[in-house]
Amino acid sequence: MKSLMESIPNFSEGRRSEVIAAIVDAARSIPEVRVLDLHSDADHNRSVLTLAGPGEALQDSLFRAIATASELIDLRTHQGEHPRIGATDVVPFVPLGETAMADAVSAAHSLGRRVSAELGIPVYFYEEAATTPDRRNLEAIRRKGFEELRDSIVTDEERVPDVGPRMLHPSAGATVVGARGPLIAYNVYLNTEDVRIAKEIARAIRHSSGGLRYVKALGMEIPARKQTQVSMNLTNYRRSAMHTVFEMIKRMAASHGVQIVESEVVGLTPMQVLTDAAQFYLQLHGLKLDQILEAKLMEES
Amino acid sequence: MKSLMESIPNFSEGRRSEVIAAIVDAARSIPEVRVLDLHSDADHNRSVLTLAGPGEALQDSLFRAIATASELIDLRTHQGEHPRIGATDVVPFVPLGETAMADAVSAAHSLGRRVSAELGIPVYFYEEAATTPDRRNLEAIRRKGFEELRDSIVTDEERVPDVGPRMLHPSAGATVVGARGPLIAYNVYLNTEDVRIAKEIARAIRHSSGGLRYVKALGMEIPARKQTQVSMNLTNYRRSAMHTVFEMIKRMAASHGVQIVESEVVGLTPMQVLTDAAQFYLQLHGLKLDQILEAKLMEES
Repeated sequence: MKSLMESIPNFSEGRRSEVIAAIVDAARSIPEVRVLDLHSDADHNRSVLTLAGPGEALQDSLFRAIATASELIDLRTHQGEHPRIGATDVVPFVPLGETAMADAVSAAHSLGRRVSAELGIPVYFYEEAATTPDRRNLEAIRRKGFEELRDSIVTDEERVPDVGPRMLHPSAGATVVGARGPLIAYNVYLNTEDVRIAKEIARAIRHSSGGLRYVKALGMEIPARKQTQVSMNLTNYRRSAMHTVFEMIKRMAASHGVQIVESEVVGLTPMQVLTDAAQFYLQLHGLKLDQILEAKLMEES
Repeated sequence: MKSLMESIPNFSEGRRSEVIAAIVDAARSIPEVRVLDLHSDADHNRSVLTLAGPGEALQDSLFRAIATASELIDLRTHQGEHPRIGATDVVPFVPLGETAMADAVSAAHSLGRRVSAELGIPVYFYEEAATTPDRRNLEAIRRKGFEELRDSIVTDEERVPDVGPRMLHPSAGATVVGARGPLIAYNVYLNTEDVRIAKEIARAIRHSSGGLRYVKALGMEIPARKQTQVSMNLTNYRRSAMHTVFEMIKRMAASHGVQIVESEVVGLTPMQVLTDAAQFYLQLHGLKLDQILEAKLMEES
């Protein structure tokens, strides 16, 4: 499929089911877009949708969902634990298959311009779509949320939005739109109950303490299985590959006489994570994506 | 996608491009069916199409292609090296994704009944769709081809068709319809010029001389690369897996001090071959097909 992308928009409503349903219906009203998942959290008072489709259709679907959220959610009366600045809080675009990151960045910019122009909502661009390095990090934009941004967007030069008015939409606030690689939740189980070993491996594998650039990791006890786990987020599977992570953990575990019982993906993973691993282990160095029948079918549809 | 299947129909025309184009256009006239590949061979005077789509749409597409072939190809004047009994000679259905073999068998039987009833062409069922064990093998049905079958279909009890008249269609002959697993052309390159090693490994890995049940293999010289190759067909990748084949060859090569340089897939492979390998090597024992984003997208489309 041409320019296939995923988007995981976050809305500041996790309690009123009729509002959540209206947003999902709006997103679903573009036929080429699939709603793959919906997760609503009442404590956070927040819902996360997973959508996929061709870039332009996905923008239309997101625009309708954002417009619906701006009509039905009022940040002035919204309460919830999670920090947020808008009725539609964050909208990341994720390129899938052979879609380039540059296409996801274009989609983010184009949607942001439309949201600001047609709905009067100020928009900030983050991660790969950021216009300055200090806006790459989502938290640097969101900071203390709606109540704080209401004043500082007017007074603080650092908080001028990338597009749209230099004031919050009265009820819908502001929205952060961006582009990033797919995030994969990946866990490896070890046949030891000694959590010190899992923690030592987590420290060695994660970026923050000297490991692989695109890996976050924690060592955890899993008493129900009498095992331990290295629990990870892989934030760029093309650069820090799942099979590289697996082989490093296997080697480090072996130096303690420990073995990997199994590994697991939580939620969804792009096909390419697995085909990259198959290529590595089977030494299939010449394999092209369009030799995979299902990928070829999607391309041509 | 529901009941996704592939079909690789063989037509007895590889020279007249307008006839080939008419058959391809007929197959393509069902919107849900994709034409993935066309290979025409002038010496064999034969064309092989690769089609994919949902089972019912695929049957409609094949029926139109078979009807067109029966109008435009006359076996009485057809010449070519390849043995053949019909204008449409062989039509295998191959289940893809989570589609069951039983569904491919049903599709074969249903298409065969329609071809015999509406076009007056006798049909034989082969491989998984065979009605008796002696018709599983395609060559046991095709034997010496059209000219021989014209008499023996009438005189020989063993050659009564599974459905349709007990006489050949005057110009279009008979057709063999069946169901089988996907066939994968898979080669492994060795860093030795000693073809005896490749031949020894081929003998050990292939079914016919004591190896894996669903593997055909030959050892070959590849002088241009100063290497040798174990050249294979994998006829059931769920039972004799690519990663099992790879690991056996790797182990046998090592006992000669030889290593695998790379392996290659020629043409198309189902995604599951690669995800099976990734599951094996990464010990992803709990992974489900619908955790793969692209597979989930196809399911829901």
